[in-house]
Amino acid sequence: MRRPLVGLLSDFGTRDWYVAAVKGVVLTRCPHAALVDITHEVPPQDVVAGSLVLAAALPWLPLGSVVLACVDPGVGTGRRIVAAHADGRFLVGPDNGLLWPALGQARTWRAVDVTACRQRLAVRSRTFESRDVMAPVAAALARGTPLARLGPPVRRLVPLPQPAVAGRRGRWHGQVIHVDAFGNLLTNLPGRLVRRAGVMVRCRSRHARVVSSYGRGRRGEVIAVVGGVGLVELAVRDGSAARALRAGRGTAVELRHGAR
Amino acid sequence: MRRPLVGLLSDFGTRDWYVAAVKGVVLTRCPHAALVDITHEVPPQDVVAGSLVLAAALPWLPLGSVVLACVDPGVGTGRRIVAAHADGRFLVGPDNGLLWPALGQARTWRAVDVTACRQRLAVRSRTFESRDVMAPVAAALARGTPLARLGPPVRRLVPLPQPAVAGRRGRWHGQVIHVDAFGNLLTNLPGRLVRRAGVMVRCRSRHARVVSSYGRGRRGEVIAVVGGVGLVELAVRDGSAARALRAGRGTAVELRHGAR
Amino acid sequence: MRRPLVGLLSDFGTRDWYVAAVKGVVLTRCPHAALVDITHEVPPQDVVAGSLVLAAALPWLPLGSVVLACVDPGVGTGRRIVAAHADGRFLVGPDNGLLWPALGQARTWRAVDVTACRQRLAVRSRTFESRDVMAPVAAALARGTPLARLGPPVRRLVPLPQPAVAGRRGRWHGQVIHVDAFGNLLTNLPGRLVRRAGVMVRCRSRHARVVSSYGRGRRGEVIAVVGGVGLVELAVRDGSAARALRAGRGTAVELRHGAR
Repeated sequence: MRRPLVGLLSDFGTRDWYVAAVKGVVLTRCPHAALVDITHEVPPQDVVAGSLVLAAALPWLPLGSVVLACVDPGVGTGRRIVAAHADGRFLVGPDNGLLWPALGQARTWRAVDVTACRQRLAVRSRTFESRDVMAPVAAALARGTPLARLGPPVRRLVPLPQPAVAGRRGRWHGQVIHVDAFGNLLTNLPGRLVRRAGVMVRCRSRHARVVSSYGRGRRGEVIAVVGGVGLVELAVRDGSAARALRAGRGTAVELRHGAR
Repeated sequence: MRRPLVGLLSDFGTRDWYVAAVKGVVLTRCPHAALVDITHEVPPQDVVAGSLVLAAALPWLPLGSVVLACVDPGVGTGRRIVAAHADGRFLVGPDNGLLWPALGQARTWRAVDVTACRQRLAVRSRTFESRDVMAPVAAALARGTPLARLGPPVRRLVPLPQPAVAGRRGRWHGQVIHVDAFGNLLTNLPGRLVRRAGVMVRCRSRHARVVSSYGRGRRGEVIAVVGGVGLVELAVRDGSAARALRAGRGTAVELRHGAR
Repeated sequence: MRRPLVGLLSDFGTRDWYVAAVKGVVLTRCPHAALVDITHEVPPQDVVAGSLVLAAALPWLPLGSVVLACVDPGVGTGRRIVAAHADGRFLVGPDNGLLWPALGQARTWRAVDVTACRQRLAVRSRTFESRDVMAPVAAALARGTPLARLGPPVRRLVPLPQPAVAGRRGRWHGQVIHVDAFGNLLTNLPGRLVRRAGVMVRCRSRHARVVSSYGRGRRGEVIAVVGGVGLVELAVRDGSAARALRAGRGTAVELRHGAR
């Protein structure tokens, strides 16, 4: 029997009944799903952090997996809810940039608008769209319902609201947008900026050597690599770049071309 | 094949081996159960908080689900362990009020005393009743064992030890008994008190407008609604009532009839 | 159909995508596994704490269960990764002492070196051995692959780096190595030291009575028992020894023979 994985990512925390309600609806509609929590500890309403965890986890889930992702500061403001297919896996979530990096790293994707999907629960109390809309849609996808049957196609999604990167004469001013559990610093600098010779990356007065992979760093050295979601990351081999650089979210990172 | 959901709620936290031991026993006795953590972060020994999370989650689980709930400050004091059936779902836990709101909101319920159930584990070391008694009983229910076979019937359960509400000349003095993850304030004021015209609810000098559902609030407004477990809740649409009112557990809430 | 339990224990926390990646690999290779988190909140790199939680949980999992355990400060230093069979259950983890108490309490165990196992993922990015090596090996064991096929036998494992116990003229100086969620204090004093008459155990100027089981304590009394992993534990019946003794990890515990 098919046993589809349904992953869950949110900023709900695990103290309350919200995650259980979402899971209850998924298992009511698709009793054979294997539920996997990606995380429910995304900082509240932090779409950027949630989008990066989602993009990092997705490629490791089996083909056919469905991920319900909900970090949704705009609930009730008319934003759409979308379902998408990306390289053999499915995503369901608000159209607020949360799915953007995960779709952006896929070879191909397509999406539909499920805001008014017929699968949605008829609930009269407080609106709770991850339970009432996203969970039934995720269960339908897990059962094998074709994406196109769940709603009208969506051509463009809302991009991730990343802080802008100002570039001038080969200089780029970025910042740390996420610190992962190892203390690696994800920046908003696109990876393509370091794919040439003579690139210098600097953070809190320290230079990071650009290398092709984490394993190329020397112990204790600050390095810059292009991470899984295509952004420049700062890391320290066998250590924490966050600690070594006393850096956190918002810390400035400078990238210069043509430096010697 | 039947794949029953077994939900788990406790104050065990997730740092230690206790939850895994309970799950191991459930899966030993019922290998096809789908385990769902409701939460293990009920504040230690806080029966009231646990009971409200349990009551809120239960209706969203599939029919036939079993929930093992354990917040048990009275362990070792002779309190009973009970199993109950409520509107198509099952509960197992201590008879200390923890199951009370969940059963109270059901159309019908019945319970049995499983303290000395024959299904219990024969363990000689430290007593750990959620593992040794509740887990085998939950697994038996998940396998389809009839409730009546698990123990003698129980007519009355111990009610939830809610703080009393003093009422005089149309005034009721309640308090906040739980703050949920959205900052909604659950009070110990029964919902029936607001089901008439001219009711005033006040908390920390601010008045809350009584409305029929969360969606009826204006952005930023403090509202009072009757929540899922039948108690008056204070909420702020698109915001946190706890923050807006600087209120928490124990904060006084006043309700007056006949106010203009 | 066989539905093997795969348990997971780590110091990864639950905020990031690491646990989901490990689970995704396990479910890709063994879609019918029932995943159970033992804990992901082992204090970072605390092999001793992780080893004790693992040893305590293991006997409660169904026969045939596999546990992937990863607390691995030595990642990248050439330590081996091993898989072991112990009394009908399987363990996969680094050979750094983490599996030591779990294997030590088994009647029989055997282990193989899976560091270079053919099942491992071919990944070119950052090394992440719990995902790339341990997860495929755990999935293979869950599918029923014989242990001996996964790697060459290992005769001796690295022992747990427990702080040493200095003994002189019947005196032993130990310390608390772990505090569990009930406030019980696990010490590094081997249980055999208290299996004779006239033993005195002292911690922060208070004497603990040596008893054969937790149930033998009087309410509020400090007792010393031999716990599940064969070490002396200090406990207070219906209370917290950590609180009663104001003790924590590192607190000195003295044991004397021949005292009256």
